[in-house]
Amino acid sequence: MKYGKAAVMVEENRVETWEVPVVAPEPGGALVRVVLGGVCGSDVHIVSGEAGKMPFPIILGHEGIGRIEQLGAGVDTDYAGTPVKPGDLVYWAPIALCHRCHSCTVLDQTPCDNSTFFEHAEKPNWGSYADYAWLPNGMAFYRLPDHANPDAIAALGCALPTVLRGFEQGGPVGQGDTVIVQGAGPVGLAAVLVAAVSGARKIVVLDHSQHRLDVAMSLGATAAISLKETSGDERRRQIADVLGPRGASVVVEAAGALPAFPEGVDLTGNHGRYIVLGLWGAIGTQPIAPRDLTIKNMRITGATFAKPKHYYQSLHLAVHLQDRYPLASLISHRLAIGDAVKALELVKSGAAIKPVIDPTL
Amino acid sequence: MKYGKAAVMVEENRVETWEVPVVAPEPGGALVRVVLGGVCGSDVHIVSGEAGKMPFPIILGHEGIGRIEQLGAGVDTDYAGTPVKPGDLVYWAPIALCHRCHSCTVLDQTPCDNSTFFEHAEKPNWGSYADYAWLPNGMAFYRLPDHANPDAIAALGCALPTVLRGFEQGGPVGQGDTVIVQGAGPVGLAAVLVAAVSGARKIVVLDHSQHRLDVAMSLGATAAISLKETSGDERRRQIADVLGPRGASVVVEAAGALPAFPEGVDLTGNHGRYIVLGLWGAIGTQPIAPRDLTIKNMRITGATFAKPKHYYQSLHLAVHLQDRYPLASLISHRLAIGDAVKALELVKSGAAIKPVIDPTL
Amino acid sequence: MKYGKAAVMVEENRVETWEVPVVAPEPGGALVRVVLGGVCGSDVHIVSGEAGKMPFPIILGHEGIGRIEQLGAGVDTDYAGTPVKPGDLVYWAPIALCHRCHSCTVLDQTPCDNSTFFEHAEKPNWGSYADYAWLPNGMAFYRLPDHANPDAIAALGCALPTVLRGFEQGGPVGQGDTVIVQGAGPVGLAAVLVAAVSGARKIVVLDHSQHRLDVAMSLGATAAISLKETSGDERRRQIADVLGPRGASVVVEAAGALPAFPEGVDLTGNHGRYIVLGLWGAIGTQPIAPRDLTIKNMRITGATFAKPKHYYQSLHLAVHLQDRYPLASLISHRLAIGDAVKALELVKSGAAIKPVIDPTL
Amino acid sequence: MKYGKAAVMVEENRVETWEVPVVAPEPGGALVRVVLGGVCGSDVHIVSGEAGKMPFPIILGHEGIGRIEQLGAGVDTDYAGTPVKPGDLVYWAPIALCHRCHSCTVLDQTPCDNSTFFEHAEKPNWGSYADYAWLPNGMAFYRLPDHANPDAIAALGCALPTVLRGFEQGGPVGQGDTVIVQGAGPVGLAAVLVAAVSGARKIVVLDHSQHRLDVAMSLGATAAISLKETSGDERRRQIADVLGPRGASVVVEAAGALPAFPEGVDLTGNHGRYIVLGLWGAIGTQPIAPRDLTIKNMRITGATFAKPKHYYQSLHLAVHLQDRYPLASLISHRLAIGDAVKALELVKSGAAIKPVIDPTL
Repeated sequence: MKYGKAAVMVEENRVETWEVPVVAPEPGGALVRVVLGGVCGSDVHIVSGEAGKMPFPIILGHEGIGRIEQLGAGVDTDYAGTPVKPGDLVYWAPIALCHRCHSCTVLDQTPCDNSTFFEHAEKPNWGSYADYAWLPNGMAFYRLPDHANPDAIAALGCALPTVLRGFEQGGPVGQGDTVIVQGAGPVGLAAVLVAAVSGARKIVVLDHSQHRLDVAMSLGATAAISLKETSGDERRRQIADVLGPRGASVVVEAAGALPAFPEGVDLTGNHGRYIVLGLWGAIGTQPIAPRDLTIKNMRITGATFAKPKHYYQSLHLAVHLQDRYPLASLISHRLAIGDAVKALELVKSGAAIKPVIDPTL
Repeated sequence: MKYGKAAVMVEENRVETWEVPVVAPEPGGALVRVVLGGVCGSDVHIVSGEAGKMPFPIILGHEGIGRIEQLGAGVDTDYAGTPVKPGDLVYWAPIALCHRCHSCTVLDQTPCDNSTFFEHAEKPNWGSYADYAWLPNGMAFYRLPDHANPDAIAALGCALPTVLRGFEQGGPVGQGDTVIVQGAGPVGLAAVLVAAVSGARKIVVLDHSQHRLDVAMSLGATAAISLKETSGDERRRQIADVLGPRGASVVVEAAGALPAFPEGVDLTGNHGRYIVLGLWGAIGTQPIAPRDLTIKNMRITGATFAKPKHYYQSLHLAVHLQDRYPLASLISHRLAIGDAVKALELVKSGAAIKPVIDPTL
Repeated sequence: MKYGKAAVMVEENRVETWEVPVVAPEPGGALVRVVLGGVCGSDVHIVSGEAGKMPFPIILGHEGIGRIEQLGAGVDTDYAGTPVKPGDLVYWAPIALCHRCHSCTVLDQTPCDNSTFFEHAEKPNWGSYADYAWLPNGMAFYRLPDHANPDAIAALGCALPTVLRGFEQGGPVGQGDTVIVQGAGPVGLAAVLVAAVSGARKIVVLDHSQHRLDVAMSLGATAAISLKETSGDERRRQIADVLGPRGASVVVEAAGALPAFPEGVDLTGNHGRYIVLGLWGAIGTQPIAPRDLTIKNMRITGATFAKPKHYYQSLHLAVHLQDRYPLASLISHRLAIGDAVKALELVKSGAAIKPVIDPTL
Repeated sequence: MKYGKAAVMVEENRVETWEVPVVAPEPGGALVRVVLGGVCGSDVHIVSGEAGKMPFPIILGHEGIGRIEQLGAGVDTDYAGTPVKPGDLVYWAPIALCHRCHSCTVLDQTPCDNSTFFEHAEKPNWGSYADYAWLPNGMAFYRLPDHANPDAIAALGCALPTVLRGFEQGGPVGQGDTVIVQGAGPVGLAAVLVAAVSGARKIVVLDHSQHRLDVAMSLGATAAISLKETSGDERRRQIADVLGPRGASVVVEAAGALPAFPEGVDLTGNHGRYIVLGLWGAIGTQPIAPRDLTIKNMRITGATFAKPKHYYQSLHLAVHLQDRYPLASLISHRLAIGDAVKALELVKSGAAIKPVIDPTL
């Protein structure tokens, strides 16, 4: 039997490198050799235990691009009907929908009532901090176009599908929208990018880090405001200078910090939309005035759990934009599977925009 | 010069009966003899001062049905193009849109940036606690069909347009929806009715008053729960019994009380919508967990300020349903202009479902 | 091995009764004993060869309600997550989506690029003119609520899901819509019913058969016009009398006859919607004026291929309405599997509203 | 009394230059000195008589940018609430909505039931082939931002609002759409531009003129196909090469020629949308197969009559893009009021992309 390396979280705050067996794909599934495994902020929360109980031990990594090693019986296309064969590069959606629950079959909505995020590390496994990912029957994957740059796709990782999901639920950005993005981590950067290429007239981004703000500007933001150097009142004033008296027609929460929530409600202009994406993991409440919602005729939409379609769209959007925007250069660090802990620390510290696991290292 | 009576709020908590001149309509406008002036909960807040400063003295009343006394120059149809002549009954939308602001001409949204709610009592005036209402050029009015029962239209007053506006913004109730309505005052009753005739499978209504709950059942609610006899936990349990494990797909806030807000967020099921209508006047904040919005994939929409279209739709909906539902019987009290204070007290006490001012008394 | 009867179309215009083996369900699938197999107008087109080539021989019948005989490995709920066990009644969607094509995973649209309608009669088979239906893994079925009347669900057959699909694509009927339905076969009757319970103010139905028009009136139509007794001009005049000068806001084509198409475009009012459902099988073109589409600001939407969600919604809608509308009584004839040809002739002749195959006969 | 020049169409095919009085604005209105009057293809149809009867004599020109000469009583902002004063540049929507008809107040739709396109040349007049335009009360105008280039706004004229209206009705272009635009006159060019800045992945444009195709490429088209050099079959093949097997998700008809209609239906891919904009003036029918609409799950939307909002959006979109795209250079000819006939001939011949009337010449 063949073995491959994998970064395994055996319990809270403990990650080890294991040798795990490489298993042939099941009918309908695929075995892929991982090319890049994205390191995501969620992984930090998972390892710290903040994201709740998992079926430990688990192989880390839910963002992956890989090369098809072997296709399961009956598989000759990807999940959009494009022919595939061993050797092709694919991008996969790490949550397989069950297609047998109320959310899936009646509402066409995610989260699926039976989603499985992680599999026990001793079972065939699609964790992407690994040499191989075993994609079960039903886990959607999409072939990369021939000219695709895998780095450009991995750069925004699951943040880009998350943002596309958010705009599906909260309504798209359109011609003339004036947008505020709270936070310039991957979700915020993805929101800036999608807003920019969807017709937003102005995009103001807020973050603590000047470096992240600079990156946001390179992806289409038209103004950047440092959270470190402004009070809430000053921010509001600076935003009014940029957006004018009507303020923001769309605010995207990509900060993940509770105080962003009431500030976001406040920054949303009359008739505006507030789309909450980053606060899926922050436990706690914040006071808001329901009266504001009525008087301002505004809407708040929470979203999470991108669908396979959003991975497909993200893949093709990234490829479409890879030459126009410096996407690939967002990948700030490449680390070996054995350096998974280091990769997580880079994300945690805020020093890195996007580290990836490169199994060839 | 001819004079008519009018109930004038001269300052906070002081209402007088005045004789005011009857003024010929301006070009584009109309003069109507008031048939019914609805007494609304908002009027109570206005008189008590809770609704903020007004250009006192003002003639009270923003809900009205009247008979055309005289049409202004150039007017030969209502605002839907239906021919009108003196003697016809009309229903009007009490807020004239300016059609010259960003909300009106660019967004097709209300509130209009230049809305005028009330006019000084010494000027020509559309307040409906009066013998005559002078409708300015631009204030939309619609002719009642010949077989219309004015009581059925007045019964839900501006609550019905408000609810239609809410469903326009928050998305309509459709086949199979499971609905919770918080509060069974006029807004809640209107929400129950619209949900019932739009395909909702189940409609649970919550209120303190058994009488109001009974009325809600007569308008299409399928279950009623007393706020007086249940704790939040008990309510949640009873609702689960009625709606099943997936809970409500739509929750409508028509309570006007701040604690309803976090309870409404909580009662909204996965993939559900929460539409906030009643809390336009309640000053204050309530804590909610933004995480709930993302994890439950839910949306909160605030709405207020019905458009003329909602008055048109309300008129025709009420007429369409006047024989199927006991709408006209919702009018619980008829009072003279001179009894305006008494009418307001009836609303304030909660004893009345819907008092109206009848100028013929 | 156990055997059951099945009506098998062996070639065009030739149907035989076969004894076919009863096969245990595959993992994820189910074996059901058929309670009612609906006879649909499409079946007539299939048997006559008009619907094109099929993988003959095939077991006829794509509408079915059955009782679970045996569940495949791993199945303990229906496709909405409701627990199921042998003996439960279920309703199934006869087209399994592949969840591996562009239509399924990227667009959430039907038709699926890989739909399989029929299976060769010698293979395990879900045709419903049979004692047993073998539902493959992935073919959605939904448990009937305890109080459901199977006849009420079977009465409109696949016409009800088709109509719900049509309103999903073409926009729902809402409060105040004025609707024309072309044709009062099952699709037209379903359109009338859905429009009636969704808030349509007026519903005019057109058909050749007075009996069908009468049935349409019993399901909520407010006016019926005979195609036999009117010319196009007379119809237009009569419709104007009913709907007024603005005409129809929604027209539903459920006639299946080519000349209905230009008449439908013509009958659609300004700003209206025309939803084409019945013409999926009629080969040929009809002349229409594109200028009408622009000047009238109108939209034409074609739809077909209901999704599993529409079967779920249809099931629950029929149960919800089974006591309010005479749904069950639409079933005009019950015939044995061996009388399939007779059943098809009843549909073809227009004499029957809805015959069903009852395997117990 | 002051006089100004105006190009007056006195009857079919007869245009004269008149001296007309300059009239002070009415209350709510404005008098503007015309800076640019766009020459539109519709003007050709009007002058030739193809567009039907008009209240001759009329002053030509429905596209205009001007400088405020005098504001009517009560006017101190434009129709989006932006302060204005004499000397400011404004862009106006040439059709004033009545705000008193069913289309205006109940449906929020255009065409308004009482639209007035042209005014008799001897009355105060907003025709833009003139020194002055007198904008009546209710005719929306919007102030140009300070850095706006009037040429860039005039370049696409009323074609840009028309396209925005079309996408409002037929659904916006979004990330990943594959678009075909039939025709590269101003409407087609505007469709290309809007699609390009709204996220379309691929945009194929069809036209007879190589010059127009080149301009389309400069505005964001990704492929151009000559109608002159291809048969329908060849076009289909070339389009398949560019768009792949799924074809177009959106087709925009901007050709104005009847045969484009069935070709557009044919070119629309499964689940696609066909938006008909150019055929408002072409009298006649074309055969299409209703079956295609159902089997392909497609939608056809006709639209015309841009709203004031679309003029506002067009203005700001053009200003936003004026440095990124060669908009201003689309203006191919500048002619004096007295050369109106020559301007019309330039448009008719197809030699000009966009001539404008410049009253200073």
